[in-house]
Amino acid sequence: MAAKGEKTREYILNESYILFAKKGFKQVTMKDVCEVTNMSRGGLYSHFSSTGELFEELLEVITQNDEMDFRDRIKKGTPAAVILDDALKRMEHELINDEDSLNTAMYEYAQTVDSGFFERLHKNSEKKWKELIKYGIKNGEFNDVDVDEIVNMILFSYQGVRMWNGIITIKTKTCRSIIRNIKRQLTGE
Amino acid sequence: MAAKGEKTREYILNESYILFAKKGFKQVTMKDVCEVTNMSRGGLYSHFSSTGELFEELLEVITQNDEMDFRDRIKKGTPAAVILDDALKRMEHELINDEDSLNTAMYEYAQTVDSGFFERLHKNSEKKWKELIKYGIKNGEFNDVDVDEIVNMILFSYQGVRMWNGIITIKTKTCRSIIRNIKRQLTGE
Repeated sequence: MAAKGEKTREYILNESYILFAKKGFKQVTMKDVCEVTNMSRGGLYSHFSSTGELFEELLEVITQNDEMDFRDRIKKGTPAAVILDDALKRMEHELINDEDSLNTAMYEYAQTVDSGFFERLHKNSEKKWKELIKYGIKNGEFNDVDVDEIVNMILFSYQGVRMWNGIITIKTKTCRSIIRNIKRQLTGE
Repeated sequence: MAAKGEKTREYILNESYILFAKKGFKQVTMKDVCEVTNMSRGGLYSHFSSTGELFEELLEVITQNDEMDFRDRIKKGTPAAVILDDALKRMEHELINDEDSLNTAMYEYAQTVDSGFFERLHKNSEKKWKELIKYGIKNGEFNDVDVDEIVNMILFSYQGVRMWNGIITIKTKTCRSIIRNIKRQLTGE
């Protein structure tokens, strides 16, 4: 039964991802989630009590998957440059294909809650990136950069593009140049 | 008379800056502007027809002052490193003293209009920074960086911090590290 419950939860998260990406946060109701999942109100509420709870779990799962991926690969001894490349490719893909992302929903949700949840998400991202960069420096793969400084540049330039994408149209070339600069600072390439 | 009208316009812009910084865009009405300026409705409307018009002119004046400052100093032969230092200090000050800034108002306003106005502002910022960096490279003061790339990093890391400052609390240390990284890339310091 536990396994089945887990699977249903995952199914709800997957279906509502599409909903949040399309409609943002404010405009999604629990009724919408019932519709896209073909679930009854009772069935859905036994898993999630609100769209807020659903959305936070969705963001947490995505972030944790990313974190696990970094940590697992570091443990396995995957070269830091390979992990970096994959992560930057994911970032670039997200920046360019903005319409598939949860950005709008995220900013809308951030207006409605206190900062605790987002502080936590941000700290986790920070931690994950710092680990990777320290690992790369130790390995001799990355330049001997100021770790805090470069992590702030990674996270905030990425967020800047994500944010402005909602306001002006940002060219693919611009997204790519941000990614290139980060890579250049780390590997000199 | 033209001079007096100009002075009144400037006075209205200055007083409404404080209002927009404090209340954002959505919550400011023309009535509020009348109150803080001690002007009659008729008097105010002879200068601005809406808070939107007022706000756009405010942002344009700020951006133009900044631009003129860059261009004037380049023409006078002020070292690029000095112009850069002053500009980064202003950016740092704005990031750290977020409560005096128009950030919230700007994001609120951006939700209500099409992207044209912000595209223009962004292009002007881009142009201004590119000129400074090319000048610094030509002078031999700056490293031979990829101009487009570094300008994107400057503008988007700055916007990322500005944006996230409304969601989580960003430490002074973090703002400083962003500024330091830009300086490091340009001057190696």
